[in-house]
Amino acid sequence: MTRDDALALDARDPLGAMRARFVLPAGVIYLDGNSLGCLPAHTPALIADAVTRQWGHDLIRSWNSADWIGAPQRIGAKIAPLIGAAAHEVIVADSVSVNLFKLLAAALALRPGRTTILTEPGNFPTDLYIADGLAATIPCVQVRTADLADIPAALGPDVAVLMLTHVHYKSAHRRDMAALTRAAHAAGALMLWDLSHSTGAVAVDLNGAGADLAVGCGYKYLNGGPGAPSFLFAAQLHHNALLSPLAGWMGHAAPFDFTDDYAPAPGMTRFLAGTPPMLSLLALEAGVDLFAGVDMRAAEAKSASLGALLIARLAEVAPDLVLASPRDPAQRGSHLVFQHAHAYEICQCLIERGVIGDFRAPDLWRAGLTPLTLSHADIWDAAEIVGAVMATRAWAAPRFAVRARVT
Amino acid sequence: MTRDDALALDARDPLGAMRARFVLPAGVIYLDGNSLGCLPAHTPALIADAVTRQWGHDLIRSWNSADWIGAPQRIGAKIAPLIGAAAHEVIVADSVSVNLFKLLAAALALRPGRTTILTEPGNFPTDLYIADGLAATIPCVQVRTADLADIPAALGPDVAVLMLTHVHYKSAHRRDMAALTRAAHAAGALMLWDLSHSTGAVAVDLNGAGADLAVGCGYKYLNGGPGAPSFLFAAQLHHNALLSPLAGWMGHAAPFDFTDDYAPAPGMTRFLAGTPPMLSLLALEAGVDLFAGVDMRAAEAKSASLGALLIARLAEVAPDLVLASPRDPAQRGSHLVFQHAHAYEICQCLIERGVIGDFRAPDLWRAGLTPLTLSHADIWDAAEIVGAVMATRAWAAPRFAVRARVT
Repeated sequence: MTRDDALALDARDPLGAMRARFVLPAGVIYLDGNSLGCLPAHTPALIADAVTRQWGHDLIRSWNSADWIGAPQRIGAKIAPLIGAAAHEVIVADSVSVNLFKLLAAALALRPGRTTILTEPGNFPTDLYIADGLAATIPCVQVRTADLADIPAALGPDVAVLMLTHVHYKSAHRRDMAALTRAAHAAGALMLWDLSHSTGAVAVDLNGAGADLAVGCGYKYLNGGPGAPSFLFAAQLHHNALLSPLAGWMGHAAPFDFTDDYAPAPGMTRFLAGTPPMLSLLALEAGVDLFAGVDMRAAEAKSASLGALLIARLAEVAPDLVLASPRDPAQRGSHLVFQHAHAYEICQCLIERGVIGDFRAPDLWRAGLTPLTLSHADIWDAAEIVGAVMATRAWAAPRFAVRARVT
Repeated sequence: MTRDDALALDARDPLGAMRARFVLPAGVIYLDGNSLGCLPAHTPALIADAVTRQWGHDLIRSWNSADWIGAPQRIGAKIAPLIGAAAHEVIVADSVSVNLFKLLAAALALRPGRTTILTEPGNFPTDLYIADGLAATIPCVQVRTADLADIPAALGPDVAVLMLTHVHYKSAHRRDMAALTRAAHAAGALMLWDLSHSTGAVAVDLNGAGADLAVGCGYKYLNGGPGAPSFLFAAQLHHNALLSPLAGWMGHAAPFDFTDDYAPAPGMTRFLAGTPPMLSLLALEAGVDLFAGVDMRAAEAKSASLGALLIARLAEVAPDLVLASPRDPAQRGSHLVFQHAHAYEICQCLIERGVIGDFRAPDLWRAGLTPLTLSHADIWDAAEIVGAVMATRAWAAPRFAVRARVT
C-alpha cells in the first residue's frame, strides 16, 4: 500500500466534503476529536452574532426572539436521529456527570425495592463516581461492578439499573447494545447507556435496542466546543413516570408562573434544571448542525476504514506499538489505543511534531479517528511521523518525560 | 427636582465611568440587568479569541496553555471580594439550581440526625423546587417553610440547614444576613444564602456574617451572559467535611489518573462535577473582570440613589403604580417593584417604548437598577416614559394583553 492508495480512498469518500466545513490548523494532524472536537467553520460567526446581536443588542428579549428558551429541546431533536431516538426523547442540559445523576436517581425511583446500580469496573471514572455519590446520598442504595462477561450473572433481582458505556473511553471496545439491554430487561432492570464516545462517530440505535435511558457528550464528535453541554435521552414509555431529582425551575411545567409548588413539565423538559449556558449551547447547536444529512452508517464505515489503515501502517512502521483495541471494527468505536511502556513520552513527542493524540494512564497512546475531519492521507502521514519517532527513539529525549497537569 | 439635578448626580457619580465599558443599545433604557446583565464592551473580542484561537487553533492544548482547567477557581477568586469571601472559598460551576442541590445535600450530611430544610414561602421557585426534589430523593428529609418573621421560632432541633435568599427576587426585600445566620447557628443549623439578586449589586459580607454556604448567579449583575454559570461558596471551616453528592470527575483529587475510586479534591474544587462550558465560563470571567476595583459600598450607594430617584419621580408622574419594595434602601436590593392590576400590559407597553423592565406574576412591574450601567438621567427619562404611558393609558391597547411564553 502507498500514499496514493490512501488518496484514492479519500477520492471516493462520501464524507470527504465535510472536511472543508471545519477549521483545521495548519501543520497539525488532529487525532483528539474524541476529546475535543474541531471548530466548525460556521461557528465563529454564529457565536459572534449570539454575543453581539442576541445578547448585546436584543438583551433579555432574545429568550423569545432568538428562541433561546427552546434551544434545549431544539438541539435535542437534532441529535435524536444520530442515536436512533425520536425528536422529543432527547434534550440538551448540564454535563454528562449531572445528567447521569438525574437519570440514575430517576431509574431507582422507577424500580422501588431495587437498590443496586450495576456497572463495570474501568468504566469512565465520572460514571463510577456519580453512581457512588448517589449511593452515598440515598441510604440503602449501592453500586456493584462486574466485568462485562459477568454482567448477565450479576443482574440479580436487586438491580434497578444497569449503566454501561457503549464505546469504552480507553479500549474503544463497543458493547452489544441490543443484547445487554435485553439482559437488563430480562432481569427487570432499566438500561442506561453512556454514549459519550459513540455519538457522532458510530451508528447508534437506542430505540432499536429498546434502551431506556442514555446520556452523551457534546464536545467530542459533535464538535460543540470545550465543555459543551450534554444530552440526555429517555424512551417515551417512561416519560410520564420519570422524575428528575434536580427539580429546577426550567424543568417546571410553567416556570414563569413562579409558583411555590413543583409541577414537572411534560416529556424531557422536566430534566432541565437551571438556566442553560446559552453561548455554549449555541456553539453545540452549530456543531450538531453539521450532521444534518450525514448518514451515521457512512460515518461508521469511514471510521472503520481510517482505523484499518492506521492499524496496518503502524504494524509496518511502528511494530513496538501494540494495538490494545479490538481489531474487528464492528467491535470498536472510532478511536484506537496502542500500548507502549513509554506511551506518555511518545504522545508528547508526537504532539511536538503536530500529531495530536492523547495519553491514557498507565501506558496507552490514544488516537481518535473522527470521520468528519480526517482523511486517509492524514492517517498515512500521521503513521509516517509515528514511524519516524519510533525508529529514531525521538521520544526518549528527557523533556518528554515531564508530565503536564493535563494530558 | 429637574433633569438637571439628575445630571448633576451623574456628574459626581464615582461609578460614572463604568457605563462606557458596556455595549448599551441605542434607544433603550435597560431596567432588566437583574435578569440578564448587559454585554461588557470587551467581551466580544475575548469570546472571539476563545473560539478561534483557543478552541479552533490550539484545540485540546488550551486546557493547559489557556488555563481552561483553572478557570472555575480563577473566576471564583475574582468573585470572592464582592461577597466578603476568601479567594479559595468560591468556585464557579453549573447553575444556581444544581449548586443549591449540592450544598443542601452536603449540609444535611454535615448535620446527621437533622432532616429538615427550612426556608420561606415565596422564595425564588428554583430554591423551593430543588429542596423539594432533594427531599423526594432522600427518605426522611423534608422541607418546611415559615414566613420570615417566624423563622427564629421555626428553627427547631430538626433543622439541618436554613436556606434563604438575601435579596428577594420580587419585593427586593433584603434579609438581615448577620442576624439570620446567628439565629440558624444558635439552633445548631447551617446557613445557606442565595445571593442571586445581591452579587454585584449590593455589599455582601459572608464571612463577616459567619455564613456557612452560599450560591449566586453569573448572568444578572455580574454581566456574564445568558445562562452564565453560577458560583458557590463554603466557609473554610467546612472544607474538609463537606462532600458533593454530584461527585463528578472534575471534582476528583486527580481526575486524569482515571481511577475507579472517588477521592474528593481539596477545598471547593470537589464541587465541580462535569467539564465546565468554557465559552460561557469565559464570558462570565469577562463580566466579573469589570468589577476589579469597584467598591461594592459605592455600588450599593449608587443603587440606593437610583432607587430614590425612581420612587420620587414615579410618585409624581405615575401615582397609580404602588411601590411594593421597601422604601428604606438599607432594607432592599438593587431593584424595585411596583404593583398595578395591569402590570403585565404596562410592562409590554414600556418595552415597546424602549423601557425594558419585566413583569412578575401576578401584578408587579419590576425595574432593575444596575449600578454599573445606569445613570440618574436614564432613571429620569424612564420615569418620564412611564408617566406618559400611565397618563395616556397607552398600555390599554389590546395587543399588550397577549401574553408571550417568556416575560
